[in-house]
Amino acid sequence: MGRVVHKYGGSSVADADCIKRVAQRIVATKKAGNDVVVVISAMGDTTDELMDLAKQVSPLPPPRELDMLLTSGERISAALLAMAIANLGYEARSFTGSQAGVITTSRHGNARIIDITPGRIEEALGEGHVAIVAGFQGVAQDTKDITTMGRGASDTTAVALAAALEADYCEIYTDVDGIFTADPRIVPAAKQIPKISYEEMLEMAACGAKVLHLRCVEYARRYNVPVHVRSSFSQKEGTWVVDAKELTDMEQAIISGVVQDRNEAKITVVGVPDKPGEAARIFETVAGAETNIDMIVQNVSAVATNRTDISFTLPRVDGARAMSALARLKDEVGYESLLYDDQIGKISVVGVGMRSHPGVSAKFFSALAEVGVNIEMISTSEIRISVVVDENLVDVAVTAAHTAFDLDDEHTQAVVYGGTGR
Amino acid sequence: MGRVVHKYGGSSVADADCIKRVAQRIVATKKAGNDVVVVISAMGDTTDELMDLAKQVSPLPPPRELDMLLTSGERISAALLAMAIANLGYEARSFTGSQAGVITTSRHGNARIIDITPGRIEEALGEGHVAIVAGFQGVAQDTKDITTMGRGASDTTAVALAAALEADYCEIYTDVDGIFTADPRIVPAAKQIPKISYEEMLEMAACGAKVLHLRCVEYARRYNVPVHVRSSFSQKEGTWVVDAKELTDMEQAIISGVVQDRNEAKITVVGVPDKPGEAARIFETVAGAETNIDMIVQNVSAVATNRTDISFTLPRVDGARAMSALARLKDEVGYESLLYDDQIGKISVVGVGMRSHPGVSAKFFSALAEVGVNIEMISTSEIRISVVVDENLVDVAVTAAHTAFDLDDEHTQAVVYGGTGR
Repeated sequence: MGRVVHKYGGSSVADADCIKRVAQRIVATKKAGNDVVVVISAMGDTTDELMDLAKQVSPLPPPRELDMLLTSGERISAALLAMAIANLGYEARSFTGSQAGVITTSRHGNARIIDITPGRIEEALGEGHVAIVAGFQGVAQDTKDITTMGRGASDTTAVALAAALEADYCEIYTDVDGIFTADPRIVPAAKQIPKISYEEMLEMAACGAKVLHLRCVEYARRYNVPVHVRSSFSQKEGTWVVDAKELTDMEQAIISGVVQDRNEAKITVVGVPDKPGEAARIFETVAGAETNIDMIVQNVSAVATNRTDISFTLPRVDGARAMSALARLKDEVGYESLLYDDQIGKISVVGVGMRSHPGVSAKFFSALAEVGVNIEMISTSEIRISVVVDENLVDVAVTAAHTAFDLDDEHTQAVVYGGTGR
Repeated sequence: MGRVVHKYGGSSVADADCIKRVAQRIVATKKAGNDVVVVISAMGDTTDELMDLAKQVSPLPPPRELDMLLTSGERISAALLAMAIANLGYEARSFTGSQAGVITTSRHGNARIIDITPGRIEEALGEGHVAIVAGFQGVAQDTKDITTMGRGASDTTAVALAAALEADYCEIYTDVDGIFTADPRIVPAAKQIPKISYEEMLEMAACGAKVLHLRCVEYARRYNVPVHVRSSFSQKEGTWVVDAKELTDMEQAIISGVVQDRNEAKITVVGVPDKPGEAARIFETVAGAETNIDMIVQNVSAVATNRTDISFTLPRVDGARAMSALARLKDEVGYESLLYDDQIGKISVVGVGMRSHPGVSAKFFSALAEVGVNIEMISTSEIRISVVVDENLVDVAVTAAHTAFDLDDEHTQAVVYGGTGR
């Protein structure tokens, strides 16, 4: 008998009819002979509505109480889904994150999973029930308070549960068909990726891809849980995220996809004295302001001045805070000035194949040059190349890279270009 | 330092503004130097709305899941109230019934309190916090599932918590000013009762008074918790429900109040053979149909026929079921016919004083006769006399009894009758 975990997001359970359709899909999976565990988000905009209510009684709700409030949303959808499944003749039980054994840190609003002890889930499965787990929540190990777990939490919980229950795989149901070689809204010729490795998905998530959260993919990779990302509105196969070993040579493209990130800003510390410790001082300060630094570029110092410029990128929302922290450092470090630019975009090409294929950087940079996109910063990993460009040129750059690496769908291409493919 | 328990019903916390007003009242109580524990219902019509949602996904929701769903309502209002209190500068923590240590039977939808172990509440009070407990719910002792506790549950929980925490008293905030000598909508001259004994309140609740639930009053009496029933929309003193010993002679009226119940029906089994065991058979059958019998009247058998009529009253909602069960008994018992009458009302006068004052029945029955009300059945306890009359004459009967026992408010009377009082 197989064992699978399904996860359904808010748009998949937006109203009673959606819930009934999801129930039918779950029952079909159970009928096929599987143990089924479901992680479910709150219906539609419930979480936002509860936040609104909170703001009406208090401009600064205490974090513990906010978690008590918001977790009601998932509880409601989990109970309703269990009812809908029972109505189709199958037994189902809903569980809060706490009842399901999701143990977390005590950081309200952004708790991390410490452990999952799914005793009651195993019991329910043993009795032949479908187990429905309220997503987004757990219980704090030390205080025993209910916690919520921040962005991507339900996906992460689903994968973590799949690992703890030794499920065969985890299906993440969402409102897109799967992972694409580029954002289809920018590149109509983007293709759905049938299979992708954990490492590539990690890079794509880290570099701007929104479908699966970074933490979720990390968990999947650590515990080797195959993840199937697919649409809850159709029966189509989605994208499988798996161990790289599962990919055949045929499937292992040089470049799997192109992603963009419009949420970064660039800070340049101009004219930093080339003395040991100066760069460290700068980054200590920014870290102290609780910001995550992404790309860093430091050029060799100019011989004449013995000064250098250091540029780095960070989330746009942290920009103001980092600038204030650095401004206070001016006398101590002795730099000349600070520049702030939030009109940037980051484009990344990701692919395990680039390890064994030289020339990927060259092809990437040429493609950008050919469409007049200037590269401001470059950063690489073993399987990813990222560049920072002018924000207004992001779409052009993504499209150019996609075509350059032969990712365009031939049919779409033919329609767009009037030819029979490349 | 005093210790009090407040309970607020759904209409008292109907929206964000109501919640903020309730928060102010609680903070005022805390400022006065008290430990404060609050039991709170779901906001406004939330419970009904959640029931609607449930019916949309399933015509017959499994009881366990219905409890998981409905308890979200109280969770939401408890968290919001805690936020509102924090916004006024006082610390508050919300707790589910389970977290508050409300241990119940496992009968979903109608669980009973087995015990209350309020360890976390004591801890919160010890830290100077206001403790907010989600009403209507507990945790089943054996299954550890969340349960809801049926009608009057939040009032009962509040009183039970007050008992377990050895609170000085329990205040039940509602949308009326207190307990009245009669329903003010029927008798404009009804007066608010300042103090009433547990026993009288029990009788009034059992005989149709809606403000406090029977179970709640039973709990208060068993554990000697003074209960203050008052309006959440004003600062006026309400009605204190206390041990009879607390009432002075002055306060101990002969009759405390008149109540009516329009929810009963009368069944008459006509011509029952006067043999031992026949009455038992009839009542066994009705009990087997899970109905609660209220009043029973059996006349002596007619000498000529050696048969008797047995009449009893029961909740109108159980009428059809009881009639079916009795119909199946016809041959076995050999009665002549069954009569069903749901056009009845039950009027009760309640007062500890009647123990020591003869003539109360006579005064009651005369008052009814004077206004042309025929009495169909009579039933009494030490401190209560109930009669069954035609449903259309209930208001007339209540008014007549109220006046006959000198309960009319003199000012109102003067306005109505143009005199200076009796």
